[in-house]
Amino acid sequence: MEDFFNVLKVKDFITILKALPVGGKQEVKLAQARGRYLAEDIVSFEYLPATNRSSMDGYAVRSKDTFGASEANPVYLEISGQVAIDEIPQDRLESGLCVRIVTGSTLPPGADSVVMVEHAHEMGGQTVEIRKPVAPWENVMLKGEDITSNDVALRAGVKVSAPRAGILAALGREKVDIGVAPRVGIISTGDELVPISQTPAPGYIRDVNSHTLAHIAAEEGCEVNIYGIVPDLKDEVQASLVKALDENDVVLVSGGSSVGNRDFTLTALSGIEGMEVIVHGLALSPGKPTIFARKGDKYVWGLPGQVTSAQIVMLILVIPFLRHLQGKSDSFDLNKDFFLRARLSRNIASKYGREDYVRVRLKKDGTRIIAVPVPGKSGLLKTLLEADGIIRIAENCEGLSQDDEVMVRLV
Amino acid sequence: MEDFFNVLKVKDFITILKALPVGGKQEVKLAQARGRYLAEDIVSFEYLPATNRSSMDGYAVRSKDTFGASEANPVYLEISGQVAIDEIPQDRLESGLCVRIVTGSTLPPGADSVVMVEHAHEMGGQTVEIRKPVAPWENVMLKGEDITSNDVALRAGVKVSAPRAGILAALGREKVDIGVAPRVGIISTGDELVPISQTPAPGYIRDVNSHTLAHIAAEEGCEVNIYGIVPDLKDEVQASLVKALDENDVVLVSGGSSVGNRDFTLTALSGIEGMEVIVHGLALSPGKPTIFARKGDKYVWGLPGQVTSAQIVMLILVIPFLRHLQGKSDSFDLNKDFFLRARLSRNIASKYGREDYVRVRLKKDGTRIIAVPVPGKSGLLKTLLEADGIIRIAENCEGLSQDDEVMVRLV
Repeated sequence: MEDFFNVLKVKDFITILKALPVGGKQEVKLAQARGRYLAEDIVSFEYLPATNRSSMDGYAVRSKDTFGASEANPVYLEISGQVAIDEIPQDRLESGLCVRIVTGSTLPPGADSVVMVEHAHEMGGQTVEIRKPVAPWENVMLKGEDITSNDVALRAGVKVSAPRAGILAALGREKVDIGVAPRVGIISTGDELVPISQTPAPGYIRDVNSHTLAHIAAEEGCEVNIYGIVPDLKDEVQASLVKALDENDVVLVSGGSSVGNRDFTLTALSGIEGMEVIVHGLALSPGKPTIFARKGDKYVWGLPGQVTSAQIVMLILVIPFLRHLQGKSDSFDLNKDFFLRARLSRNIASKYGREDYVRVRLKKDGTRIIAVPVPGKSGLLKTLLEADGIIRIAENCEGLSQDDEVMVRLV
Repeated sequence: MEDFFNVLKVKDFITILKALPVGGKQEVKLAQARGRYLAEDIVSFEYLPATNRSSMDGYAVRSKDTFGASEANPVYLEISGQVAIDEIPQDRLESGLCVRIVTGSTLPPGADSVVMVEHAHEMGGQTVEIRKPVAPWENVMLKGEDITSNDVALRAGVKVSAPRAGILAALGREKVDIGVAPRVGIISTGDELVPISQTPAPGYIRDVNSHTLAHIAAEEGCEVNIYGIVPDLKDEVQASLVKALDENDVVLVSGGSSVGNRDFTLTALSGIEGMEVIVHGLALSPGKPTIFARKGDKYVWGLPGQVTSAQIVMLILVIPFLRHLQGKSDSFDLNKDFFLRARLSRNIASKYGREDYVRVRLKKDGTRIIAVPVPGKSGLLKTLLEADGIIRIAENCEGLSQDDEVMVRLV
């Protein structure tokens, strides 16, 4: 167990990561902001809606006039006109009158509600029969109900989702400031690796990590540059790191970060002037051999060579880090990603002092959701492929028991 | 109520949509397949792993030799050599011997397990002390454990996620066939609309739907073409539809699809030769005035003008449709998206015969998750913005009661 007391706890590492400065911002067109993080508070200088607008096709009325109306005992109002969609009516609506109105039109002064066309019946002439009462402001979108003037409509740090893009459009924001996504360079190390274009000779395998890590970084909006496979030689790893650091903001190196025979990432990093190795070893499984180093505002992650381990470290730490650099608020608040409640199908052992992430499949048992741990080694591709989610075993926990309730993060 | 019996039930509409032919496929580089849907079964012609490989740094052994080993009573083995990462060892490992091995190396014949370096201690000379037994095949990734030759590794219709990109890379697939994403044209209708670049005069509002619909279609991998705002005139709507249909596979028209005064989408569609209006009106709230029409292999959706209604119809119907065209399997199996169990904070009324989607905020009450309906009209932007999810009220249900269990789809 002693080896886990030489390594950093995940929560202490996250404290370090959270304190790192956020990157710059850039102005982009609204469509380019999709999925990115706002780098400015969006302040409204308008009321949305700008007026009291109808949310239905029907008749603008004074609600009091309709009180008591029913199928058996309808109320009769006189139609005094109609409001066009693009019109601001000026004439006050007097009691006993109504005006025809369409969805989105502005109510005339005096009117405080809209009777839906389905609940009214024109009798010919100018008379309409109202069969159902409306409450004050029923079927009306009030002036400023969405946003009032000088209101902060959206806070910096939120992701631009479709509804938020709607707010930005409604406020006339053709361009917005978003956090600049870091450029991510990817290096694979390992004498046993060949590019995926090659058929591996016996003993060799194709380089999977370059592609999975690139996939994940691209999903975070990052420009990705792949530097290919570097042999397990300190000078070669160092030269590749220097080049990748020059051309990127973040460099991901997979392989070579364990304490085994081939630990060249750490020695290569130590040979780069100004490089500060902040973490070498985390109380995390999988992911213990993770390295994190910094040179000014550029960062290097040493990730496990095992394909599944590398992806778990990406999920738990590197993705939140890439979002943090883009200014996402609460990007390390991982708890909210573990929202699906399930029961464990069997006992799972864990080591005290280490955070464990276990891949699970989900299945239904009546109304209960069961989390079934996916067996398999971190070097296998299929464990993540077969998993519907992951669960966390906290560092102060020595394991979980069958039927324990667990919170699952979907993957 | 009778109006809901004139309209199509959602499940019957989905039956129609499911039967529509899937679009074509295209070959792209692996990186371009990110988030898209495979259009071919991926068959492996190799074993992955190709050999029995170590998943740990340590010593390859015959597991029998370690049985009974403990801290107090270790077993001593003689180191007969080591296996390089890129080597296929030929010499059989005899009883009493072991070889040094690194993660990923191939086990020599005769060896069936690996003792982790943490559980062994080299005594000097060629002797290593083993302090813990290993089970047969412990710390070994078996030949073919991920994929065997002639196995279907991935099925057509699945989304290319990071773990699946890993499988494709491992199999050497530099290029893969994916479903072609439809080109999506977007038209907004409404005399009250102005482009977002303009400050609306009184009575006018900015065109939100063009931007939210474009956002959502782009998230589905579609090329999006925006045709701007078309006045509420049948000929203008029709001309715009014809142009958009010529240049796209799917056209989304928002506004003008209700039975109110400005129902130009339907009349414009009826004027286009070969256009078959399949649906006009759904037993769905919000989203009742939805239109769906087809001309050969091109499709038109008429969506509500109300911003929130339009987005709900996108979520429930148009997104699955866009995925179906790309060959996604089970794209209309919406139930699995509603996976979060919550309790309702209050009663909600609904109409029998209609599927209702209600926006909810989630909050915690001890260990329970409470779904709080977000009040507000479909024309308001903030209801979707404030919602964490949506719940469905089935068509054969007249409402839900406080404390009822509901399944939430996160938005």
